[in-house]
Amino acid sequence: MNANDEPVIGSNVTMGKGVVIEPGVVIGDDVSIGHYAVIKRDTIIGKGVQIGDLVVLGKMPAGNNKMAMKPAQELRPLIIGDGVKIGAHVVIYRGVMIEQDVLIGDLASIRERVAIGKSSIIGRAVTVEPKTVIGNRVTIQTASYITSDMVIEDEVFIGPCCSTSNDKYMGCGNYKHQGPIIKRRARIGNNAALLPGVIIGEEAVVGAGAVVTKDVANEQTVVGNPARPIHKKQERS
Amino acid sequence: MNANDEPVIGSNVTMGKGVVIEPGVVIGDDVSIGHYAVIKRDTIIGKGVQIGDLVVLGKMPAGNNKMAMKPAQELRPLIIGDGVKIGAHVVIYRGVMIEQDVLIGDLASIRERVAIGKSSIIGRAVTVEPKTVIGNRVTIQTASYITSDMVIEDEVFIGPCCSTSNDKYMGCGNYKHQGPIIKRRARIGNNAALLPGVIIGEEAVVGAGAVVTKDVANEQTVVGNPARPIHKKQERS
Amino acid sequence: MNANDEPVIGSNVTMGKGVVIEPGVVIGDDVSIGHYAVIKRDTIIGKGVQIGDLVVLGKMPAGNNKMAMKPAQELRPLIIGDGVKIGAHVVIYRGVMIEQDVLIGDLASIRERVAIGKSSIIGRAVTVEPKTVIGNRVTIQTASYITSDMVIEDEVFIGPCCSTSNDKYMGCGNYKHQGPIIKRRARIGNNAALLPGVIIGEEAVVGAGAVVTKDVANEQTVVGNPARPIHKKQERS
Repeated sequence: MNANDEPVIGSNVTMGKGVVIEPGVVIGDDVSIGHYAVIKRDTIIGKGVQIGDLVVLGKMPAGNNKMAMKPAQELRPLIIGDGVKIGAHVVIYRGVMIEQDVLIGDLASIRERVAIGKSSIIGRAVTVEPKTVIGNRVTIQTASYITSDMVIEDEVFIGPCCSTSNDKYMGCGNYKHQGPIIKRRARIGNNAALLPGVIIGEEAVVGAGAVVTKDVANEQTVVGNPARPIHKKQERS
Repeated sequence: MNANDEPVIGSNVTMGKGVVIEPGVVIGDDVSIGHYAVIKRDTIIGKGVQIGDLVVLGKMPAGNNKMAMKPAQELRPLIIGDGVKIGAHVVIYRGVMIEQDVLIGDLASIRERVAIGKSSIIGRAVTVEPKTVIGNRVTIQTASYITSDMVIEDEVFIGPCCSTSNDKYMGCGNYKHQGPIIKRRARIGNNAALLPGVIIGEEAVVGAGAVVTKDVANEQTVVGNPARPIHKKQERS
Repeated sequence: MNANDEPVIGSNVTMGKGVVIEPGVVIGDDVSIGHYAVIKRDTIIGKGVQIGDLVVLGKMPAGNNKMAMKPAQELRPLIIGDGVKIGAHVVIYRGVMIEQDVLIGDLASIRERVAIGKSSIIGRAVTVEPKTVIGNRVTIQTASYITSDMVIEDEVFIGPCCSTSNDKYMGCGNYKHQGPIIKRRARIGNNAALLPGVIIGEEAVVGAGAVVTKDVANEQTVVGNPARPIHKKQERS
């Protein structure tokens, strides 16, 4: 370990018991870190960040023979913006960029090559797969699943327990994966399922429990399995 | 820290490695606490409680600019009744009351202002939101999601992966949230989704995968998306 | 503790900070173990295994008055095959057999009396209940729920957020539980729900969000709630 690898820690940083700070970590001023937090090498933490107990930040991806993983050294460090709040038992990988004032709930996990825009909320127990882009002021509620290769634009609202997928042939094809694209201010009800590659239009509404197999137009509301449009006057009250 | 803030620990208490006991904690006799458990300030733990490894008990809520959170000092301490068993990696907030003989599975998390009645089971990876009341002898199976402002009466059975919601306008309105109300001995099948404010009657049955958009009468069985009543003779065998 | 109970640790084993190794543990060569990992008594870990931070391996089951649990001493130790990779915050119980080259994602949990065949993938936040058998080269994607008493044959693919159940009477009957049986190379779409005891035939396909209430024939594709067969030409594109 050379001198450049020594952690740099700002002023007024508080740490719980047994915190692990690996080489190359940079921590801003006024940060608080919970007990037994593990901050992996090179992670960059902004000012005023609050980090819960028992988290793992900056994890390197593993893989097995089925999956060709990019070598970890190609991933940029995990970057956490000013004012971000991170719950307990959270796991965030190397190669993630989290902008300022994001809130990440307990037991959430976020894989590599993900970007999260400012003031967004990633709820408790949410899982985010690699290579997904999440905009500003997005809300993803508890226990929703965000697959890889998704785009979630600004101010989207995703209710609890929603599910998404990116693999039309369920592990059988040799082709590009594509997750859903959710346009600006669309809203997704709880336990909805979005199929690979569907586009949810701006300000569209997907009802609770809907199974979305086709694109949804801007401002359209869909419900059911498979999801179909409803007229405004038939909207559930 | 004044003298009153020193933890009070009963007799025959066993603790794993690196346990953190913050000021003001009270622990009854015959309690066992796993490795690296974090017991936050003022938490009260009854007799014979079993606590797993790597838990966080008595966590203070955080919040961001989108959410007006009550100041933590208004919350009562977490109270855990006699004989409760808590799994590994569990997170329970300050302001929760857990009655005797409750079982809480691994990786579950329970937010503030929740009450759980005696001998109930909160399964693995279940998430419970704030201000929900759960009765006695309730079973909530693995990975179900219990939203805020719910009432779950005695002896209700909720299968695995159920989803609930409390926000009819999905983040767009300025109004009171209301979660579902599940009456005594009702049973909910796996992966069912309950919409905001629906009332599930006593001894009613919600089929697996049902999307419940309207109230369900006492003893009624509903299935489908949207959920509709079925006659007894048509019941799935 | 007698001499036979002392842990046996191979060569070239690396351990993070604060690792707990209980008596009777056996660790093979070239193993890496993350920070604050807890390895419970008698656990057997093969060569080249990678273990993440903050895991609990070899946990004894607890129980409450509702559940008659087998005494822990009847369970065999947890056995982890060569080359297995285990993520952060994973919980695996005593009485589990994991064959070589299995990958287990972060925040997954696996109960007792489960067997997992070689090169299978257990995704992040997946929960597996007791007494289930999982074959070789199976993929279970993120956040799926695998109930007890299931059989999952070789090369099955289960998408994210799938749900299964084993209890037809939802806690009201005194009878044998039976989870679904998923035959070789069947594929299950995201957020599908499988009812107790259904048999999914070889190479069958269950669509995303389907609620499967009856058996599915070999090579058949089913979609909807309740799930019904579709002809090939009607397959969703």
